[in-house]
Amino acid sequence: MDTLIIAKLDLFRRELEKFVVFTDEEWLIFSGYVKILNLKKRAHFAQEGKVCDQIAFILNGSVRYYYIKDGEEITSYFSFEREFTSSYNSFLTRQPSNNYVQALEDTQLLALDYADVQKMYADPILAYKMERFGRLVAEFYLICYDERVTSFVTQTPEERYLKLLENGREILQRIPQHYIATFLGITPVSLSRIRRRMLKSA
Amino acid sequence: MDTLIIAKLDLFRRELEKFVVFTDEEWLIFSGYVKILNLKKRAHFAQEGKVCDQIAFILNGSVRYYYIKDGEEITSYFSFEREFTSSYNSFLTRQPSNNYVQALEDTQLLALDYADVQKMYADPILAYKMERFGRLVAEFYLICYDERVTSFVTQTPEERYLKLLENGREILQRIPQHYIATFLGITPVSLSRIRRRMLKSA
Repeated sequence: MDTLIIAKLDLFRRELEKFVVFTDEEWLIFSGYVKILNLKKRAHFAQEGKVCDQIAFILNGSVRYYYIKDGEEITSYFSFEREFTSSYNSFLTRQPSNNYVQALEDTQLLALDYADVQKMYADPILAYKMERFGRLVAEFYLICYDERVTSFVTQTPEERYLKLLENGREILQRIPQHYIATFLGITPVSLSRIRRRMLKSA
Repeated sequence: MDTLIIAKLDLFRRELEKFVVFTDEEWLIFSGYVKILNLKKRAHFAQEGKVCDQIAFILNGSVRYYYIKDGEEITSYFSFEREFTSSYNSFLTRQPSNNYVQALEDTQLLALDYADVQKMYADPILAYKMERFGRLVAEFYLICYDERVTSFVTQTPEERYLKLLENGREILQRIPQHYIATFLGITPVSLSRIRRRMLKSA
């Protein structure tokens, strides 16, 4: 394996230590299943109507999650470097995805196939560590989803935009405004109006 | 232990078999941590500002999840018999809850304390099975949250109400209309308007 790939796998291993610490023996098995995936800008990681067969860790780049409704794209979320991505519902249920996951820029990922993840859950050496890893990752994303639901239920689009300004500078700098608008649950015109209003009152 | 409690624990064990099958030895340890909890109608299982210390299985009754914003209650979700309930984000992160979980009627639950769940993750006999159980439960709720986010992003309140009519008869029969309205993201007046419009076009 070339040294660049080894460095990327090392970065991945260190990131996963937020969840679990793999022994060298465990990591040798785990890393054997990891595939490098390069997506050109606008290429799809997951598509509506197809079962999403992979979960992936973003090495560099970013992805956008969107639905198509009445011919319009509705952006629902974004993921960046050192985050996981998948069409989770489809990946977990093995049902066709109801949304798209698309590279916002040239994006490199480390991917695991669903079938390989199942092999690891069944591997006597890895089973316990994998179950723990899977639990902690699922709980982590449960908390993310909970915050997203909370924002829909308790905040106006203007409040969601202010929150984004506070926490998500990266989102605002790297993402086209019309994607941000649907992410906030509003039209691009409404977003422009909110921004003008905020500039005036600043 | 009286036979009624044993019957309830048996029901719980059978329900958990959707996720994992505990051996008798494992179940003896697990069930030793289970507490019976009786909530009167309108009593709270979780409250804003307090860390939610339990996760519970609803034996009978139902609960409502709500936020308070600008002095108004905003209902975000409901859970019924044979479902789990918690203020998950608070339970998992050990941070104060940002929402309330309240009994909609007299409700009986089987509850597990956070500290006891951690003891089970650390118990050599239970550890593997518990991690697997925890993963599958977290994945199950991840899928529920995903569906809720999808409905917010892709559906109008009217479409969400139609979906509820299809899938959630129980919700509609047992829950006051003003809770359903905020669950759909609209005012009670808007819900009445939607219902009148649907009656006319039926």
